[in-house]
This record gives sequence, structure tokens and C-alpha cells, in this order.
Amino acid sequence: MRPIDALVNALPEGRVLTDPDVIDSYARDRTFLEPGKPLGVVLAASRDDVVTTMTWASEHRVPVVPRGGGTGLAGASVAGDGAIILSLAKMTAIKELSPADEIAVVEPGVITADLDRAAREHGLMYAPDPSSYQISTIGGNLATNAGGLRCVKYGVTRDSALGLEVVLADGRVLNTGRRTMKGVTGYDLTGLFVGSEGTLGVITAATVRLRQAPAAPPATFAAEFGSLRDAGAAVSAIMAAGCQPSLMELLDRATLEAINDLRNFGLEAETTAMLIGQSDAADGQAVAERMEQICMDNGASFVAVSSSPQEAEELIGLRRMAYDAKERLGACLVEDVCVPRSVLPDMITAVEAAAARHGVKICTVAHAGDGNLHPVFIFDRGSLEPPAEVWAAADEIFTHALELGGTLTGEHGVGLLKQRWLAMEAGPVAAEVQRGIKAVFDPLGILNPGKAI
Amino acid sequence: MRPIDALVNALPEGRVLTDPDVIDSYARDRTFLEPGKPLGVVLAASRDDVVTTMTWASEHRVPVVPRGGGTGLAGASVAGDGAIILSLAKMTAIKELSPADEIAVVEPGVITADLDRAAREHGLMYAPDPSSYQISTIGGNLATNAGGLRCVKYGVTRDSALGLEVVLADGRVLNTGRRTMKGVTGYDLTGLFVGSEGTLGVITAATVRLRQAPAAPPATFAAEFGSLRDAGAAVSAIMAAGCQPSLMELLDRATLEAINDLRNFGLEAETTAMLIGQSDAADGQAVAERMEQICMDNGASFVAVSSSPQEAEELIGLRRMAYDAKERLGACLVEDVCVPRSVLPDMITAVEAAAARHGVKICTVAHAGDGNLHPVFIFDRGSLEPPAEVWAAADEIFTHALELGGTLTGEHGVGLLKQRWLAMEAGPVAAEVQRGIKAVFDPLGILNPGKAI
Repeated sequence: MRPIDALVNALPEGRVLTDPDVIDSYARDRTFLEPGKPLGVVLAASRDDVVTTMTWASEHRVPVVPRGGGTGLAGASVAGDGAIILSLAKMTAIKELSPADEIAVVEPGVITADLDRAAREHGLMYAPDPSSYQISTIGGNLATNAGGLRCVKYGVTRDSALGLEVVLADGRVLNTGRRTMKGVTGYDLTGLFVGSEGTLGVITAATVRLRQAPAAPPATFAAEFGSLRDAGAAVSAIMAAGCQPSLMELLDRATLEAINDLRNFGLEAETTAMLIGQSDAADGQAVAERMEQICMDNGASFVAVSSSPQEAEELIGLRRMAYDAKERLGACLVEDVCVPRSVLPDMITAVEAAAARHGVKICTVAHAGDGNLHPVFIFDRGSLEPPAEVWAAADEIFTHALELGGTLTGEHGVGLLKQRWLAMEAGPVAAEVQRGIKAVFDPLGILNPGKAI
Repeated sequence: MRPIDALVNALPEGRVLTDPDVIDSYARDRTFLEPGKPLGVVLAASRDDVVTTMTWASEHRVPVVPRGGGTGLAGASVAGDGAIILSLAKMTAIKELSPADEIAVVEPGVITADLDRAAREHGLMYAPDPSSYQISTIGGNLATNAGGLRCVKYGVTRDSALGLEVVLADGRVLNTGRRTMKGVTGYDLTGLFVGSEGTLGVITAATVRLRQAPAAPPATFAAEFGSLRDAGAAVSAIMAAGCQPSLMELLDRATLEAINDLRNFGLEAETTAMLIGQSDAADGQAVAERMEQICMDNGASFVAVSSSPQEAEELIGLRRMAYDAKERLGACLVEDVCVPRSVLPDMITAVEAAAARHGVKICTVAHAGDGNLHPVFIFDRGSLEPPAEVWAAADEIFTHALELGGTLTGEHGVGLLKQRWLAMEAGPVAAEVQRGIKAVFDPLGILNPGKAI
């Protein structure tokens, strides 16, 4: 009997898929990375299925690649030869939602937006909102410590994770964390699993924090600048003024041109950058007007505050179009550096310089309030992977981000894509310590090998 | 040559103290726990001193007990026989304070309130404010993941920790985390060290997040209730109304009586609980009045909103007096359970029942917005340690907290004091995993043995 037949027998009927085409569709994420030839896909429907799969995988030493919505941008769920893909996407139960305690207990396959919608029925919200939140899963968000647009006010996924149920590599079940807002019993295992990209265990349930939803739709402003530096100064001034924006996005000229080509919004020749911000505070309209004034004080050539939710949707719609607009230009490598906020203009300038030097088209959108930039490298759709000049430009950008006190990845994760730069940031002691931690949880090295660390 | 002489020789002159009386004064924290007979005290003045000490300790297999301000309430810095006490209290440099990036880089001996004061010079604040913040150190706050009064709005110490410099057990230097607001490169080692009570490494520098300081002093209200349940309902209603209090403290009848005995504030016979809350929002006065109204709607017998900072100081002064008032009654064992907010009244009722059943005096103050209670057990000052009935009542309270979905310790840590209950909360898999992590960082088991896990 082949090992996979033992797995098929051990699980309830229909859980294992072995059709090569189907396997291939589960072996990819949103990167260009080509998967290997995995053995099969487990569609887990329960914690028991995960326990059975991990027990089997440990016995047969088969690599396991856990997977949520497949929306990753770093290759963390791209599966290699001989692996079992463990999909948690069918575990979609919201097991508990307590308005009084402002928490929910969910299975990992719950779609991010579905949890948020469920919370809103009780006047609450689930704050983390990665751009893919309509199709990403909570499990995937936890595995990558996903960020999003609202991070600037509400923090990243880790800031909303209180406790986890995790199946370890050998099939044991570990409970971490708590249901309470505070707690310091033992080491922070919850925080350790969040962002570990499935390399330490498989999350089968999560207790997450909900927050009071704003009473009214957010107030929105947009500002155009003739200079990146002015736009950066406006961001700093807005944050320093204590405006607490709930969204603060910066679009560079290349991105604006791509959007304008897709839907003409009358981009002016002298516009170099656009800032789009929101406030979801009770006095949001007043705060948005204050942010508008700060933009004017910092040299904005044009500013508008939305006077209605419809107008706000139109402004924010420009930002939402950014990725589609870029995809029309070619294949995309989406990068994710993060720098201290004050050097955001320097970083964008460095991105533009690298683009020019290497003859690469790069469009940049930034979660400006966090200093988190997404330079998107456009390359020929015919290429299997980005050409050498893209990697050369990326290399320069990563080096520059680290020199500015930044990091390789603000919210997408290391996956496979950042492996070649990891040592530049982490250093040998951190690398050794992380390998040691990995070995505690996964001594056989079967959990998503080659990812994260 | 004795091992300690090798240490004296390896360090700059004057760093090692060996006078037994002096050692004893460094071997204690704020618990009743009696230390053993440590070998000596190192007063580290630099990272190099810490490296030298740890290298020596590894060579000679000497236990090391790191120490900040000694304000701990769980025994984490109580030193045993043959240990070296490693005091970081002299490393007090604020190495960097960047208003633009809202971060500071500090040595571990910086007093919490000093960092906050330095930040306020730039319109910023350091949010975590454990009650001991005037004498506690950032290093100690990080080691215990200290909470405080402002947690209800700004989170605990971990939420302000971005990156650390840590000397490992063998003297290697590890850098964790980052200077940026977001970052997901590798495992969350920063979060792992925060709250690890000196068992994984010695923190020699920290990059912490600062926040915009409120523009005006907070607005304050106090409300008296005839029933604990009404007070609890008021807390839930205030949080559900999205008031975002920056402080929300509940004092039970026993605490109010102790304060009233210390300074008569006219405690009414029918008052069972008092709630003191603050808002530091721009419209704080309006929010405080809204919280006042919610208290009235929930059956408060008396409510007052301060009309001036002086009046606010008087209200908050009652809360600040709580611990002094209790210390007048006898020796104190300060406990620290945390429960989901909705069951806070149940938990306080259970504390009162345990007090009555075991004939123990217990006064409770709660960070009510977080569900974090500090039942203070009063016992005879002549006893070396709490009598059996105190432990019996504590046992009952801990069991009840866990049954309510709570935790043994919301913000004080496990130290030595919670060791006997730890297995009840963490379970065998978590215990094994934590021992595995400990062994990665400290294979010889010399770092603060017997604490935290």
C-alpha cells in the first residue's frame, strides 16, 4: 500500500484529492512561483482530520503544506514535490461570537470579510483587512500575520489574536493564549504561531478580538501633490497632529498613470503622488477636513473631502483599482518593504531610482501611515519568472530599505520569495535561534519546509 | 580562585557586590518571598558587562537572576542559593527618541515614568503605565509584559515593544524585531522575550513605540453603586457604547472601607462598589459625561464628573490610595486574575464568597475594562508567608477564574508565586513546548531557573 492510500483510509471518505490537475490548482498562491508535484490534497473538515493527517505525515515523513484561501503573495503555500497539501478552507464555522466580551472563536477557513460581517451584526468589527479580505481566510491571515489598510489605526492580525488551537507536527493538540484581553501565563505561543507560515503547526481554531464598529461610514479625503517629499511631509504632519486616520494610502505617479489609463480621472501632468485618507472617528468629517488642511499646508495642489459616502467610495475606489490597473500592464511581482515613517519619501525616491537604473517598470502604493510600501514590478507576461533586471532592482530596493532601518516584509511574509534576502535582515544568531524553535515544534522538518525562516 | 573572583576580574572595577546584606537587598521583589543566599550582584553598566557575566555564568554553570527595579509582584526576580543577581538598573540611557517615527531606543534600566516624561517633551507618550511606573524599569516591564491603568485603551507592554537587543545565556547577542510599525520577517522573537521573565535571555536594549500624547488632561468620572452587578453592567455598557475609556477602575466595598479608614471621603453605608473612569480623547469631557449617564442608567447611586484637573486628581487619588490603605491592614498577597469582561461581577462575587468561606480579608481592585482583578489577601504581618486559609481561598479563586474562561495572571506574571497553579491553565502539551523553547535559548538552564514556565 502506498503511504497516500493509508491516509485515504484513515480519513473520512472524500477528504483526499489526487487528480493531478486538481492538485496543481491547490499548489499555488498569487505569486508566479511554480509548484512541484505534490502527492495530494486533504480537504480537512475538522480538527480530527488535521490530527489524522499530521499523525500520518509524521509516520511517513511526508511534508505538509497548510493552506487557506491561497491569496498569499510570498509563496508560503506553494507546494513542492511529494508534499501533502492540507487545505483548511472547508473549516468555516464561526463557533462563537460574544458581543459582551468582544471576541469570536472561529475555524481557520472562515473568510476574513465573513467574520467582519458577522461582527457588524452586533455593532462590532473584525479590524484586520488585508486587500484580499473578501477571499482570504482567518487561518491564512494568522499564518502570515496579515496587515491591511486599517492597520494604521487598529494594528495587524497579531494584535487581534488572543488564543489558538494548533495541531502539532506529531498530531498533538496545543492550546495557546486565552479568551481574556490580557494574560501573561507562560511564553507568548500565540504570537509565535502568528506569522510562522505553517512551519510550526496547523491552526485549527482561533480566538480573536473584535472591536466596536464605527457608528458612521468613514470620512474620506484625497490630496494630490507635485512632490513626493511634500506628500511624505503631509503624512508625517497628519500623524503628528494626532488625527489617527483609519486609512492613509499613498499612490505614486506610475500607479496613478496606470489607474488613469484604466479609467480616466483627469490626472494632472504635475501630479507626482496622491494621498487618500479616512477617519472613522465619531467626528470623522471634522478630522478629514483637518487632514485636508494639513495637506494644503504641505503643498498639495488639489484636495477634496468627500461630502457623502458615495463620493467617499469613488475616492477609495481609485485606490482599489491600483492592482487591477497594474495587472493590465503585465505580470506583477508585488513587493512589501516597510520603513520608519519619516523616511517614506526617501524610500519611494529610491524605488524610482532603482526602476530607472535597471529599466524596470515599478508602480508603488504605500500604506503610508505605517511606512509600508508595495512596489509592484511589472514584467513580460511571457516570462516564467521575473527577468534578471527585476531581481537586480528588487535587490537594490531591499538593501536600501534595510539601510533606512526598515524590513524586507511589512505584511506579506517571507514564504519562498524573500528567502534569498533573509540573512541580510535577520543575522546568523536569529537564524540559528529560529531553526532551534522550529526543531522544537517540528523535529522531522515536515511542516511547510523551506518557508518563513 | 573561586568562580566569583574570575567574574570580578573579568568585569570593570566596582561592578560586583558581595556584601551579604547588600546582596540580600537585591535578592527580593515586592512579594513576601524569602530569597536564598546568592553569590553576588553584578551592577551592569553596559551590554559588554552583560556579555561578560553571561559568558562567565555559562562557563561556571551559575544561575543568573536578571533584575530591574525590583517592583515585581510574582517573585520573578527573587534570587536563590548560589545565583548571580544581574542588575540592569544602572543602564539608564535613552539612546534615541525619534518624534518623527514615534519610537525610542532605550537601555533596560530606564525608569518607565522617565521615558514617558522624555516623550512628553515632544508631545508624545509612552503608554504602558504599571502602578509602579515611577520606580519600575522598562526592562522589568518587558520581562513581565507589564500592564497598567491605560491598558484598557493602549494595550500592554508587548503592544509597545518593536525590537530588542538580547544577550543570550552563552553571551551571544541577538537582535530581534525592528524599528518599523509593521514587520513579519521570521518568527516573533520580540513577543517571545516579552513576558519571559528573564528565562530566555537578558534584554540590554529595546526599541519601543511612542504615541501621540493627548492634548489636554483626561476628563474623569466616579460612580458609586449599591450592587456589584450594576457596576459590572455599567462597565460593559460603557465599553459597548464605544466610549474608549483611557482608564476604568473598579473598587470593591472592602477596598473602599480601607481607603475611607485612611482618609474619610464619606463612604455611604449602601455603597458596594465604585467605578472611576477617564477619557483622554479630544472631546474627553463629553465622553466622561456620557459615561456618567451610562452609570446612572445602570443604577449608580451617585455620579460625579470632574470639572477641573484638580478635581480629577482627587478622584483618581482615591484609586491611588488603594494599595497604601491595604498595607495598613496587614501583610498583603496581591493576586492578579483576569476574566472575560462580561463575567467580572461573577468573579468579584466569587472572590467575596471565598473570603467569607475561609475567613480571609480580601480587598479587590479591578482594571474593569480589561476584566483584570487584583484581589489583595490581607494576613498577619508576623507570618513569614501567607497562612493556609489564604492559600485555600486563593486556590478557589484561581479555579473559579479558569472556569470562567479566565487566566491566573493578567499582568504580574507567573514568577515563583503562580508555579503551583500553572499546570491547571497551561496543560501538558504547552508545558512541554515551553520547556523545549527554554532549552533552545538556555540549554544549561542557568537563566532565572524555576520562573515563568
